[in-house]
Amino acid sequence: DFMNALDEVQPAFGVSEEELQQVIQNGIIHFAPHVDELLKTGQLFVEQVRVSTRTPLVSILLHGPPGSGKTALAATIASASGYPFIKLLSPDTMVGYSEPQKVAAINKVFADSYKSPLSVIVVDNLERLLDWTPIGPRFSNSVLQALLVLFGRRPPKGRRLLIIATSSSHSILTDLGFSENFDSELRVPPISNIHSFEHVLTEVELFNSAAGTRNAIAMLQEAGFGRDDGQSPVLNIGVKKLLSLIEMARQEPDAVAERLLSALLGLGM
Amino acid sequence: DFMNALDEVQPAFGVSEEELQQVIQNGIIHFAPHVDELLKTGQLFVEQVRVSTRTPLVSILLHGPPGSGKTALAATIASASGYPFIKLLSPDTMVGYSEPQKVAAINKVFADSYKSPLSVIVVDNLERLLDWTPIGPRFSNSVLQALLVLFGRRPPKGRRLLIIATSSSHSILTDLGFSENFDSELRVPPISNIHSFEHVLTEVELFNSAAGTRNAIAMLQEAGFGRDDGQSPVLNIGVKKLLSLIEMARQEPDAVAERLLSALLGLGM
Amino acid sequence: DFMNALDEVQPAFGVSEEELQQVIQNGIIHFAPHVDELLKTGQLFVEQVRVSTRTPLVSILLHGPPGSGKTALAATIASASGYPFIKLLSPDTMVGYSEPQKVAAINKVFADSYKSPLSVIVVDNLERLLDWTPIGPRFSNSVLQALLVLFGRRPPKGRRLLIIATSSSHSILTDLGFSENFDSELRVPPISNIHSFEHVLTEVELFNSAAGTRNAIAMLQEAGFGRDDGQSPVLNIGVKKLLSLIEMARQEPDAVAERLLSALLGLGM
Amino acid sequence: DFMNALDEVQPAFGVSEEELQQVIQNGIIHFAPHVDELLKTGQLFVEQVRVSTRTPLVSILLHGPPGSGKTALAATIASASGYPFIKLLSPDTMVGYSEPQKVAAINKVFADSYKSPLSVIVVDNLERLLDWTPIGPRFSNSVLQALLVLFGRRPPKGRRLLIIATSSSHSILTDLGFSENFDSELRVPPISNIHSFEHVLTEVELFNSAAGTRNAIAMLQEAGFGRDDGQSPVLNIGVKKLLSLIEMARQEPDAVAERLLSALLGLGM
Amino acid sequence: DFMNALDEVQPAFGVSEEELQQVIQNGIIHFAPHVDELLKTGQLFVEQVRVSTRTPLVSILLHGPPGSGKTALAATIASASGYPFIKLLSPDTMVGYSEPQKVAAINKVFADSYKSPLSVIVVDNLERLLDWTPIGPRFSNSVLQALLVLFGRRPPKGRRLLIIATSSSHSILTDLGFSENFDSELRVPPISNIHSFEHVLTEVELFNSAAGTRNAIAMLQEAGFGRDDGQSPVLNIGVKKLLSLIEMARQEPDAVAERLLSALLGLGM
Amino acid sequence: DFMNALDEVQPAFGVSEEELQQVIQNGIIHFAPHVDELLKTGQLFVEQVRVSTRTPLVSILLHGPPGSGKTALAATIASASGYPFIKLLSPDTMVGYSEPQKVAAINKVFADSYKSPLSVIVVDNLERLLDWTPIGPRFSNSVLQALLVLFGRRPPKGRRLLIIATSSSHSILTDLGFSENFDSELRVPPISNIHSFEHVLTEVELFNSAAGTRNAIAMLQEAGFGRDDGQSPVLNIGVKKLLSLIEMARQEPDAVAERLLSALLGLGM
Ligand SMILES: Nc1ncnc2c1ncn2[C@@H]1O[C@H](COP(=O)(O)OP(=O)(O)OP(=O)(O)O)[C@@H](O)[C@H]1O
Ligand SMILES: Nc1ncnc2c1ncn2[C@@H]1O[C@H](COP(=O)(O)OP(=O)(O)OP(=O)(O)O)[C@@H](O)[C@H]1O
Ligand SMILES: Nc1ncnc2c1ncn2[C@@H]1O[C@H](COP(=O)(O)OP(=O)(O)OP(=O)(O)O)[C@@H](O)[C@H]1O
Ligand SMILES: Nc1ncnc2c1ncn2[C@@H]1O[C@H](COP(=O)(O)OP(=O)(O)OP(=O)(O)O)[C@@H](O)[C@H]1O
Ligand SMILES: Nc1ncnc2c1ncn2[C@@H]1O[C@H](COP(=O)(O)OP(=O)(O)OP(=O)(O)O)[C@@H](O)[C@H]1O
Ligand SMILES: Nc1ncnc2c1ncn2[C@@H]1O[C@H](COP(=O)(O)OP(=O)(O)OP(=O)(O)O)[C@@H](O)[C@H]1O
Ligand SMILES: [Mg+2]
Ligand SMILES: [Mg+2]
Ligand SMILES: [Mg+2]
Ligand SMILES: [Mg+2]
Ligand SMILES: [Mg+2]
Ligand SMILES: [Mg+2]
Repeated sequence: DFMNALDEVQPAFGVSEEELQQVIQNGIIHFAPHVDELLKTGQLFVEQVRVSTRTPLVSILLHGPPGSGKTALAATIASASGYPFIKLLSPDTMVGYSEPQKVAAINKVFADSYKSPLSVIVVDNLERLLDWTPIGPRFSNSVLQALLVLFGRRPPKGRRLLIIATSSSHSILTDLGFSENFDSELRVPPISNIHSFEHVLTEVELFNSAAGTRNAIAMLQEAGFGRDDGQSPVLNIGVKKLLSLIEMARQEPDAVAERLLSALLGLGM
Repeated sequence: DFMNALDEVQPAFGVSEEELQQVIQNGIIHFAPHVDELLKTGQLFVEQVRVSTRTPLVSILLHGPPGSGKTALAATIASASGYPFIKLLSPDTMVGYSEPQKVAAINKVFADSYKSPLSVIVVDNLERLLDWTPIGPRFSNSVLQALLVLFGRRPPKGRRLLIIATSSSHSILTDLGFSENFDSELRVPPISNIHSFEHVLTEVELFNSAAGTRNAIAMLQEAGFGRDDGQSPVLNIGVKKLLSLIEMARQEPDAVAERLLSALLGLGM
Repeated sequence: DFMNALDEVQPAFGVSEEELQQVIQNGIIHFAPHVDELLKTGQLFVEQVRVSTRTPLVSILLHGPPGSGKTALAATIASASGYPFIKLLSPDTMVGYSEPQKVAAINKVFADSYKSPLSVIVVDNLERLLDWTPIGPRFSNSVLQALLVLFGRRPPKGRRLLIIATSSSHSILTDLGFSENFDSELRVPPISNIHSFEHVLTEVELFNSAAGTRNAIAMLQEAGFGRDDGQSPVLNIGVKKLLSLIEMARQEPDAVAERLLSALLGLGM
Repeated sequence: DFMNALDEVQPAFGVSEEELQQVIQNGIIHFAPHVDELLKTGQLFVEQVRVSTRTPLVSILLHGPPGSGKTALAATIASASGYPFIKLLSPDTMVGYSEPQKVAAINKVFADSYKSPLSVIVVDNLERLLDWTPIGPRFSNSVLQALLVLFGRRPPKGRRLLIIATSSSHSILTDLGFSENFDSELRVPPISNIHSFEHVLTEVELFNSAAGTRNAIAMLQEAGFGRDDGQSPVLNIGVKKLLSLIEMARQEPDAVAERLLSALLGLGM
Repeated sequence: DFMNALDEVQPAFGVSEEELQQVIQNGIIHFAPHVDELLKTGQLFVEQVRVSTRTPLVSILLHGPPGSGKTALAATIASASGYPFIKLLSPDTMVGYSEPQKVAAINKVFADSYKSPLSVIVVDNLERLLDWTPIGPRFSNSVLQALLVLFGRRPPKGRRLLIIATSSSHSILTDLGFSENFDSELRVPPISNIHSFEHVLTEVELFNSAAGTRNAIAMLQEAGFGRDDGQSPVLNIGVKKLLSLIEMARQEPDAVAERLLSALLGLGM
Repeated sequence: DFMNALDEVQPAFGVSEEELQQVIQNGIIHFAPHVDELLKTGQLFVEQVRVSTRTPLVSILLHGPPGSGKTALAATIASASGYPFIKLLSPDTMVGYSEPQKVAAINKVFADSYKSPLSVIVVDNLERLLDWTPIGPRFSNSVLQALLVLFGRRPPKGRRLLIIATSSSHSILTDLGFSENFDSELRVPPISNIHSFEHVLTEVELFNSAAGTRNAIAMLQEAGFGRDDGQSPVLNIGVKKLLSLIEMARQEPDAVAERLLSALLGLGM
């Protein structure tokens, strides 16, 4: 019966909670308006699934360049839903799986979700789930077909499901036939703005003082960042990579700002 | 003997009944003349199979863009036939099947149908049954060959069979050699007409009053929908997607019409 | 010994008889001179195999567009041979076979035939036996190689074999290397002539009176069929499809001729 | 010891004798000088293998269009060698073999031959052994690699081996890397000469009298055969196909010559 | 518990120590400034992993032409880290592994590393791990996908990991989607400078006296090396190959310098 | 211990001795200066491996057109080394091996060699080991990857290994990524010189007298061989093929020189 079903669901949920915390352990920095907008839109879909009887299945896509924060945002929305079943489906746990094993693992998560009245599944990093490589291109057609069906298959009567998928390449998905598959597609942009940049520096306390931060920003501006005149270096970096560069720079206390600048220039921006 | 055969058929029928109800639970809205014409033409083929001795096998195809209502219409025609054997063959139940398993499952449904004097099989979503992807293209040739044979194989003496297949892409089927395979091909168009649109809004009671509906329609017309002058946005949406947008819009009671409009514009029409 | 061998052959023959009747249950309508010529030529090869000692193996091909009557004609010639071993090799009985299973099944029929002094094998629908699809193209090379060898392999001493193959595409066979493989290739044309058309209508008694038939033909002629002026619709239909359209039209007793005409026009001729 | 080895060889030889007789049961007609030249050249290689100590391995290729008589000539040379080990390696006995089974069967014949001091192996119909199809092209690379090695691998000390391969396409072999592999390549031409043609007709006694044969030849000449002016039909037919046409023509005693002529014209020469 | 975990790690470390020594047994010659810079940068990343809490995973790539010293440098950095878990993942130990075996072996090393608080894994020779060949191109997609995931997968809480990968072709990695995967990419250049060259000659004592070395260098300069005028031979050789040429030259004591020069010219520089 | 290890090695060596003798049983004819140079260079590498501590692994390639004598030369060098472990790795012994079996067999020879302090492995006929065919091209990537690793993998401490590979196509190896893999690449040219030709004739005593040989050479020169004017036939033949032609010619004692000439012309030189 239903209570038993919920019991069955508990452990799965428990496991997921840990997985979710793992991917958001660096937190969300509100460095730009779109961060809040994305979280709020996610919340709206959480509500729709909770209340509408006509749409027991809603699927959305978060897409954006590598390291722009897709996984952390998807996990945050899922975690905040408060649904009894929350699951992160990630290639991290499927290294070495054969194609049928991958399909079985994916299918099982969807089947498990049907035991809960309300579920959210984060399907993270579609390219890696699909074993996608641009050479060929090659990919797992059996995983692709499974996802195409699962993203459109209505849950059984009385069950509701929200799917949040993430991907680094919108155009690959279109080529593979995922267009028209999602109820909504949301873009997660990289940091391309000197103010967002400054916001992050401040938040992670790379410098001891506000003056230190301002100095660093001034140095970047001098180097041309933020000028946007078609010739100067362009700021275009995922928050994940930026956090990594910051930690590198932190290793040389004497020349933090210089190290940061040269790393940014080294990325070929 | 025959009575035993019918007994054997019963459980299969029971299962299918549930499956069929699942795909038509939102009902059929008669938003345009073609809806009734399609249902009536379907009924004619149901009759032909019931009475003609020279054509114990008739196969038809419902094709149209994603979400235009193919599955719901096919299921409705099948359900209304009153035949003793009605079965929905859908990729939804075959996630993770290997190619031989798929072929075996498909073949079994046809073999089962031969136990009943009159049968209808809905073969839903040919592209997914075929594991079709445009990259390559890749598809399951063994499923394809099985379908090509099964769609043309006469049932044994004294048995009659109606096949209703659905597909989102007529041109793929032609490329794969399905042309000449169907006795009739029927197109299921999307909604491209402001009156059909209004009909749906009214039916699902998105607004409390007829005035609310009229207001929303006026807003769409102002935005250019329905003008058809080559520059204004074109109305072109499957009824399935429209029902989904409506439920989304319903989440913001203060700005239902605005939300609907922006969603429609967001689809790039 | 020989009598035992013949005994072994009996059951196989019995099975085939039923299969053969199945594919010719609608009979042969002598709607054009080529129908009789094809049957007579077939009979000549039947005789050659019966009497010539130098050619214990003769193979012929019936090819023509879909539904032109190839299977029915091949089965009729085989059935009329009166040989002790007659077998229909058809993809209908091999749905879901793996490639090795297909090759084994085909090879077995040839091995079985060697037990009889005189045998005829109808190898029906080469494209489906070969799992042929134009995309790629893809096909079963192991079935192809088996057929290429079997169509040229002499039966053992004292055994004689007639092979009648059918195919909807002569050019595919040439591409695959079947040219030079057959002792004779016979074309089975579609109906492209208003008199053949009338002959069929009369034979199947679509109308109660000769006047009804004449009326229908007149209606077709008015629509341009049979004019052959490069602009009018061209008559070009397999007898199988024509019989199917006729049964459809029969469902609307009030407008039989109109229904037939619109169906023909709907085929895009 | 050697006597035992010869004993072991006997059964293999016995089996092959029957196979060889099977492919030359229609005999060799000496319709042109090249027939005798080919047989004599074959005999020379038989001698070389018998006597030379420096070349214990000799391989030759007979190539020519389909039905030109390659298999019959190779079998005749082998049969006339009088060697203690004579074997026909033919695709006819390998229908349905997997690639490894084919390679094993081929390898076994070579291993068996090493038990005899003098051996000849006819490797018949390389294209079919290789599962060659021009579409792709596709072929068995493992059979190809096995043949490339076996055709160049010296037999063990004290053993000598003559290999006679046949093929319908010299250019395919070159593409596959067989060039430089054979010690000698001999072409087996089709019949392209009216005198050879007449020779065959006489030999098989298609007509009761020399006058009948002369009449037929005159009829062919009237139709343009043998004129060789770039416009008339060209005589170009394998002796195998010609023998088949002759048997067909024999079925109509009243119009033997006419039937022969129309069959030749039907081949599109 | 933790102590047990460390115990488990010990043997793995022991084995690796031997492997590491094997690849650096010829030592590091400090023939150019970049050698020290590379070692120092490596040391910085070793520190970052040791102290930063925000970046428990850092991955770097050493890339450069064949034989430029990538493996020796990576092993030297890893060996000098003093981490409790140091492992060389090399194709040398995986000859004949199937794709799943390779993935399992790779995955196991990463799983093993998670038992240690601090780990460094040298992933040597990515092209060979990936079974890369430019013809096709062909490569193991399952190994590729495993590496793409493993290079980005955060170690479990409380564990830190440094990955040092080596590759001879940066462009292949970019094509395969490895760009953005590494925190830093460092180039290991070949020897292209006559002073570096002289440094190596001196270090390995090819000549008994400094005069001998100077003579050899003079001979090279005469031959045009080091002139860099677009026409003279260009010096461009990996230190590994240079050490090999030196040993060859050493075999002819009478003409060491001549042999070295002709070998260099023979490389087509 | 070491003595046991050597014992283990003995049988392998014994077997190889026989294999080596098999491929050089026709001996080496010193028909041109390059023959001795190649043997001497080989000997130098044998010495380098014996004495240098810095280069425990040396690999060389003998490449040249089919039949130019690569295998015989490689075997001669290996045989003359006097090393305790000498092994011929040849496709001749691997007919019908699957890819994993081939890799295992190759890997085992290298593993076996590590038991001996000094080893030489002849890796004969790389194209056949790789199952190479130019159509596609197709080849065994797993054998390729194994060879790429094994040709660069240092033997364990205290062990030394010389690898002598042979190949008929240098360009294929470059395409496959073998460039930079060998310490030295030596070309084995065909016979393209009338004096080398005469040398061989004399050595094998095709004619009873020097006058007979001179006559034959004069006949060749008259036919234009050796003129090298761009129009005359060019002499270009491997010593292996030449020895084969000579044995053929020997069969006709009356016209030895004529037969030789016509065979040479028949090769299309
Ligand atoms: N506003 C933000 N949005 C998203 N992530 C943030 C934000 N602020 C800080 N972060 C941190 O940045 C990192 C984003 O990494 P995440 O793995 O989510 O990116 P991603 O786009 O999924 O990367 P990839 O393309 O590699 O999958 C996380 O560590 C997260 O805690
Ligand atoms: N006139 C109508 N025709 C079809 N479906 C309708 C109609 N009116 C309402 N509906 C509802 O619209 C939805 C149509 O979805 P359905 O799955 O049948 O579309 P589809 O064309 O099969 O989609 P897909 O291309 O994804 O397979 C169903 O929920 C159905 O109940
Ligand atoms: N003259 C005729 N020749 C052949 N078939 C005829 C003729 N007259 C009537 N028929 C009927 O027409 C039908 C022909 O169908 P058949 O399956 O033989 O065609 P086909 O060419 O083999 O089709 P396909 O291309 O689908 O294999 C049969 O039902 C047969 O009984
Ligand atoms: N001079 C001849 N040379 C060869 N065969 C001849 C000759 N005279 C008569 N024959 C007969 O002609 C037939 C030749 O057929 P055979 O199978 O040898 O041809 P093939 O070239 O091998 O054909 P395929 O290309 O189909 O393999 C045999 O029946 C043989 O007995
Ligand atoms: N400065 C140096 N840097 C690197 N290696 C050096 C240096 N000086 C001497 N060596 C020696 O040179 C050799 C470099 O070989 P190594 O295998 O590291 O090169 P590699 O670039 O990994 O080659 P490959 O491209 O074949 O993988 C080693 O034997 C090493 O001991
Ligand atoms: N100078 C020579 N060099 C090499 N082989 C010689 C020489 N003189 C005579 N021979 C003989 O010539 C033959 C050369 O054949 P071998 O198999 O070595 O050639 P190959 O180049 O390996 O041929 P393939 O390209 O077919 O592998 C052997 O029988 C060898 O005994
Ligand atoms: Mg992510
Ligand atoms: Mg549908
Ligand atoms: Mg048919
Ligand atoms: Mg033949
Ligand atoms: Mg390396
Ligand atoms: Mg060789």
